[in-house]
Parts: sequence; structure tokens; C-alpha cells
Amino acid sequence: MSAGRNESIPELICELCRQFYDLGWVSGTGGGISIRGAEGIFIAPSGLQKERLRPEDIFLLDHARLDDAHVVCPPADGRLKISECRPLFYNAFKLRDAGAVMHSHSLWAVLAARLFSPSGGPGEFVCQGLEMQKGLRGQGNLGTVRVPIIANTAREAELTESMAAAMLAYPDVDAVLVAGHGVYVWGETWAQAKTQAECYDYLFRAAVEAERLGLGYQPRVDSKPRV
Amino acid sequence: MSAGRNESIPELICELCRQFYDLGWVSGTGGGISIRGAEGIFIAPSGLQKERLRPEDIFLLDHARLDDAHVVCPPADGRLKISECRPLFYNAFKLRDAGAVMHSHSLWAVLAARLFSPSGGPGEFVCQGLEMQKGLRGQGNLGTVRVPIIANTAREAELTESMAAAMLAYPDVDAVLVAGHGVYVWGETWAQAKTQAECYDYLFRAAVEAERLGLGYQPRVDSKPRV
Amino acid sequence: MSAGRNESIPELICELCRQFYDLGWVSGTGGGISIRGAEGIFIAPSGLQKERLRPEDIFLLDHARLDDAHVVCPPADGRLKISECRPLFYNAFKLRDAGAVMHSHSLWAVLAARLFSPSGGPGEFVCQGLEMQKGLRGQGNLGTVRVPIIANTAREAELTESMAAAMLAYPDVDAVLVAGHGVYVWGETWAQAKTQAECYDYLFRAAVEAERLGLGYQPRVDSKPRV
Amino acid sequence: MSAGRNESIPELICELCRQFYDLGWVSGTGGGISIRGAEGIFIAPSGLQKERLRPEDIFLLDHARLDDAHVVCPPADGRLKISECRPLFYNAFKLRDAGAVMHSHSLWAVLAARLFSPSGGPGEFVCQGLEMQKGLRGQGNLGTVRVPIIANTAREAELTESMAAAMLAYPDVDAVLVAGHGVYVWGETWAQAKTQAECYDYLFRAAVEAERLGLGYQPRVDSKPRV
Repeated sequence: MSAGRNESIPELICELCRQFYDLGWVSGTGGGISIRGAEGIFIAPSGLQKERLRPEDIFLLDHARLDDAHVVCPPADGRLKISECRPLFYNAFKLRDAGAVMHSHSLWAVLAARLFSPSGGPGEFVCQGLEMQKGLRGQGNLGTVRVPIIANTAREAELTESMAAAMLAYPDVDAVLVAGHGVYVWGETWAQAKTQAECYDYLFRAAVEAERLGLGYQPRVDSKPRV
Repeated sequence: MSAGRNESIPELICELCRQFYDLGWVSGTGGGISIRGAEGIFIAPSGLQKERLRPEDIFLLDHARLDDAHVVCPPADGRLKISECRPLFYNAFKLRDAGAVMHSHSLWAVLAARLFSPSGGPGEFVCQGLEMQKGLRGQGNLGTVRVPIIANTAREAELTESMAAAMLAYPDVDAVLVAGHGVYVWGETWAQAKTQAECYDYLFRAAVEAERLGLGYQPRVDSKPRV
Repeated sequence: MSAGRNESIPELICELCRQFYDLGWVSGTGGGISIRGAEGIFIAPSGLQKERLRPEDIFLLDHARLDDAHVVCPPADGRLKISECRPLFYNAFKLRDAGAVMHSHSLWAVLAARLFSPSGGPGEFVCQGLEMQKGLRGQGNLGTVRVPIIANTAREAELTESMAAAMLAYPDVDAVLVAGHGVYVWGETWAQAKTQAECYDYLFRAAVEAERLGLGYQPRVDSKPRV
Repeated sequence: MSAGRNESIPELICELCRQFYDLGWVSGTGGGISIRGAEGIFIAPSGLQKERLRPEDIFLLDHARLDDAHVVCPPADGRLKISECRPLFYNAFKLRDAGAVMHSHSLWAVLAARLFSPSGGPGEFVCQGLEMQKGLRGQGNLGTVRVPIIANTAREAELTESMAAAMLAYPDVDAVLVAGHGVYVWGETWAQAKTQAECYDYLFRAAVEAERLGLGYQPRVDSKPRV
């Protein structure tokens, strides 16, 4: 998919990262986004402040080679390294043929994962009855939404296998929560990935806020995670 | 009413949607606004990111024909579809002769509806004693504000009848809450609709925050919904 | 005091109102600011959206005549009316020789007032031990801050006398809370008024958040309001 | 380190202060930042609104003389005074050879300090298991993060010694919390200082939000502060 409105994909990535920073998703250099275009896979570097990225900071990787990271066009600054999220982003490209993947450290994702998996181990986030569910793929109604939660690991790349297992166990879901960490969300296009990321963040926050009010959107008892 | 300050109505709609996005009302492509001008009824398309709308994305519909959606001028991109909210927006144009209607997915509206209707069924939001009530039509004092809550439905258009019934039952109120979903607010002009939407959002949040503090703005016992 | 940096006072008022809107202080056309300059007293009109004010919307009143509202220069649009806050703003000009006054509907002010005066009647907000207190006039240390709370009234202008009484009872304090309504804050200059308004809002929020956590910044027992 | 992208250090300080204002770290003229460049130490003046600083407001001090404040280049306005934080900032330059230090009044820092030191006396903030910890120096894993808390004092400069003592007791930590006040965070470069400040703020908020939910990121019992 094209980047949309007279923007190149690297420009779009920079603009989206500024927006995600304002949403509290990518502070402290964490989080990020990767988009697949006709030229290959665009991905941000590691360790840079996401709200200050410039188009010349973005890597372009070969999308014919999804088993490693073959750089087609490096950033202007040769010292930059590819984001540690690359293998996780590639899960979505390989297993789902995604057009874009994003990773958020939103506190709502972390608190929701904690609520449904207090130990930090594998689990499942569940909610139902909220209109914003309809923004998710395959969710045209108000039924139950289930999102797998996987345990965090010392190094981000070590999540690759458990994230892939969760994706296989939940083929209808375009998100994986990581306990104490955040969430990965993808879509066919960058717009669908972003829309779904906003819907999930809303659902995570709604569950946390309802819990605080002593209400109960989350049927915690019924939850039987598949991984 | 004119759009105000050297802006066309489509430009104004785009600007307001960016503002509503920052307020958390229209994330994930949800929510929106429709404004009636001399030329007809302007309405945003379905499924686009609201903070990224451009004037050429806006539909212009015939306001002499409120029983269907007669397109006077379609958006530049012929694939766009009219917002699913259209029949709900038309309730306000038909039943109240509104100049503008907006629909927000604000979490404060959803939590307030949940607080007053834990089952998600029909109910009534009640508050009193808050200065911001004075920004609502017919509320020059600090008396009781009542807002009808209707149950949500699988498809947005299916809300049309229950919303109309609530509007008839509450002729002095310019808002209808939808459980698990959000709120519709209208006014004689876009400015009045927006002002009232901001006042309602404030009241919804105040009720939720007061409940969290163990205080009690909301006299839940007295509530006898009319629908 | 001059408006500062190459801005006229009407321009400054518009800019500050946009900033206050982003802080959640002046939504729904509520709240506002009045600044005294060499030419007279500048004040916003009633009922306009505060984040959309333009310099030509601002009234200029005669500051030699503080007992009524003598318009020196009206806004370009002759239908506009002076803000209903005028008599309240004039309390600060008359009783304290203020250079600027602002009025916020911040939810933190409303919740803090509610916490210290659950009935909505007169009371006193108390806090201590917070660094941000030092931004308040006469508060070079971490001792106790006291802010009078007055009851709200059906019409804003009816607050004039009780606000004046509170100001006389608390000569060292540059703020008056109004239950269910908001807060008035003033200062020698617009910069001091704004700085104090930000410090007070922080203290109100800190008290509310601490209460939610079951901690206790607010020594409620010691409170003996003077009005 | 250079200021980065075509900006002078004074311009960068102004831009960062605007960003910190939006994050709620430097309202009411509180908080600030100091950066060391080739020319010396750049520091903001006292008492100015941080989101409105201009490059010509910034002091340049001699970095060969860290025991006093030798002004190399004063601001354009001769009435301005150096920020009261200077001796605290100098702790980081002297004891850690920092390239930048920032000071935030974030409510999350204040609430987190209160949670771990309800009396306001010395203590220790503790958290573990959160991905954002990895953005901190020396924290490549998910182990325990400890941040010293020192008691506040009537005048900011009086914190100098206890802050230095805490820094010596926690040589691997680049932050010191001040009870009822905020936090100091530093780094080798302004980018590292900012990244760490964002990570710490996230951790402080996560601890407060988890406590509100009745969860427990913070192992309060294990805490044995070193100062």
C-alpha cells in the first residue's frame, strides 16, 4: 500500500512515531513501527527518540529475505542499528503477510496484561460488549474479544518464538500482548494496523478503568488461554 | 450557519475531527460529525482515520431528502462510503432541526453509561450541582441533568429507532448515551453542538472521577429513566 | 505589565486561552482570563469557544471605573457580550490591585473542592509539604497552604459578594475555589497569575490523586475555614 | 555532545522545555534542564515560564569552575537570575561527569515517592519486571530497579548535600527522587538524560497505577534504602 497523501513511507513512519509519542506509546526510545512498501520493508533504528526521527534515519530491508535482515538501503548515519523489534515485526510479515506492524509500550496495555495475568506468565485478555471492538478484523459484532498474553524475556528478540506460537494459536487476532512490556499489533495496511492499535488501546484502557470503578467488563473467570 | 472564520464546512469538519481526536473522542476511525449548511448536509466517510480527513473526503447530501441519503456531491475518491452514523445523525436533523450532530466514543461517556446502567440496558445518567451544566440548552441553573441511555446494537444503524424514542421521551435534552459505545450530541449550530458535547463529556468524567473518590455526584437511587 | 514578547494583550489572551483549553481549564466556552494593561482592562466575551478566540473578539474596558463595566473599545462583532465573570474578575482588580485574573473549570479544582467540602457549602482546601507550593505568593516554604471554598450560585455574578468576603478573610491567598464550579486565581502580572494558577491546579490534583491512593496529603481534620 | 539537528544548545533547551511542559514536568515555572556543551554549561533562568523560554534567556556558565557559578555569557535581560537548581545540576556534572541533567516536578514522581516513603523522609523506590527498565543505564534485564528518595528542604539549594550522598550510595543509578518535590535525572548526553527521564517517569506512573488497581509491581517489603 502506498503511504497515502504525498508522503514517502519514511516520512509517514516519522509522522506516525510523533503521533504515537503523543499517545504515550513510544516514550524513552521504546516501541516503533515497520511498514512494507513496494521497495521493501522500512524499519526505524534502535535507541533513537521516536518523536525525533527523520526520514534519513529509516532502514530499508529486502522483503524477499524474511529470515534475516538484509539491508537494501542503510540510514545516512552509518552508526545506527536496526531496531531490536525486527524479528517480532517479521513474525507479522511472515505468518500473516502483514503490510505494517507496530509496537507500543502503552501503560494501558501493560496494566491490562497485568490484570489478566498477575503473575506475568502467559494468559489471555478478554473483553466484550464494547463498540470499539468493531474496529478489529473479524469483529463485526459485540461478542468476546480475546488477545493472547505472552511472558516477557530478558532480550526482546527472545520473544520471537512465543509470539509466533501465540499468533498460530489465535489466527483471528492481530495483536499479542507482552506482560510488563506492551503490545504488538499489525494489519494489512499501515492504516489498518494503526486503527486496530487504537481500538486495542481503547479496550485495554476501558478494562483497567472499569476495574478501578468496581465494575466488570472483563469476565476473568471464563478465560482459558490457548497458549 | 456559516462555518465561521474563512473556512468552508468541509475544512471545518476536518479541523474539528483533529480536535476531537486529541480529546480521545474519535480514535480508531470511530465517531464523527455532520454539519448542515446552505448547500446540504456534510458528512464524513466511513472507516477513515478521523484526524487525517481532508476536505475532499467529505460527502454532501441533499437536506430536502432526510428519509434516505441522496448524494449531491461525492468525495473525490469514489470508493468511499458514507459514515454508518448517517441515520443517527439524521434523527437530530429530522426530530430537532439540528444544525450539527456529533458522535463521540469518549471513554468517559462509556464509563458513565456503565455506572448508571451496569447491565448495558436502557437507563438514565443523572448529575446535579455542576457549573458546566449551564452550558447545556435549557439548563440555566444547577438543577438535575438527565441523559437517556439506550442499549447498543450489533449494527450502528439499528440504533436509529431507540435513539429516536429516547429523543422523544427527553425533549429538553440534546444528547443520547449508547451503552458500551459513546454519545450523540447535537445543537442548533456546530458551535452549540460542540459546546454541549464538551459540557457533557466534562459531566460524564466528573461523575466517574467522583465515584472513584468515594464521593457522590450521581444520585443513582432517584433515577427513573423515561425509556 | 506589557504582554511580553511582541504580542498585544488581545493576542496574548487568545494564546493563553488556547493553552488553557489544552490543560482542560476552559472547555465548553467556560472559564477565561482578564488582563489589565495601560489602555484599560481586556476581557473576553461570553459564550465563545475559548480556544478559538481572535484578538478582535476582546473587549477593552475603562479601568478607572471598576464599579461598572464601561466599554472603551468593543469587539468587531457588535452582538458579543462581556463575560459573565466580569464582576468576579473585578474583585481581584479592586481588592488586590491585580494585573490579571483567570478562571478555570479544571476538574481537579472541582474534585478538590468536593473532597474538602462534600456538601458543596463554604469550606477550605488545605495541603502541605509540596514543592509546588513555593510558586505561590508568600509561600517560600513547605508549610500549610489554605484556599477558601465558597458555595456556587445559580448565576455567576451572584458569587461576587461571597468571593470578596473570602478574599478579605484570606489576605495572603490569591485564589478562591467555587464548589462544583472551578477556581479564580490572580496575580500582579499575567505571568504571576498563570504561574499561580498552574501551581494551584497541581496542588488540587495532587490532593485528589493522593486520596485515591489511600495516602493523605490533606490534613482534613485541622481545617477551620475563615468564612 | 552537540545539540543534534541544526539547533544550538539554547534552542534545544527551549524546545525540550516546551516538550516537558506538555508532559506535565515543568509547570508553574518549576523544573528545568541544564546541558554541558563545548562552550560551557547552559542553564535556564529562575522563575520564567519554561514553555515560553527563548534562546536569549539561557545562561552560559564556565564548566572549568564547578564549585561556583561563573557566568561566561548572561542572558539578554540582565535582571534574570540563574535557576535555583544549579547546585543540584552541578552534582551530576561533578560526581558523574554528566552531559545533561533535568529536573521534573512530575506528579508521578511525587506520588511514587509518597508511596514508598509515606513520611516524606529518606527512602527507596523499587520496581521490577517492566520492559521500560531496559532504557536505564546498566539495566539490560528485568531485575530490580532502585532509586533513592531524599527528604525535601525549605530551599532547593539545601538539597545539595543529601542529593550528593544519595548519588554516592547508588553509583549505578542516574536519578534521585525528592519527596513532595520531583526527580533529578542525568545522563552522558542530553538524549540519554531525556530517555532515562522518560523511562523513570513511566516506571513511577506504572507503580502508582498498579497500586490503584490493587496489583503490586512494587515489592515494598524488600526495600532497604542505602541512605
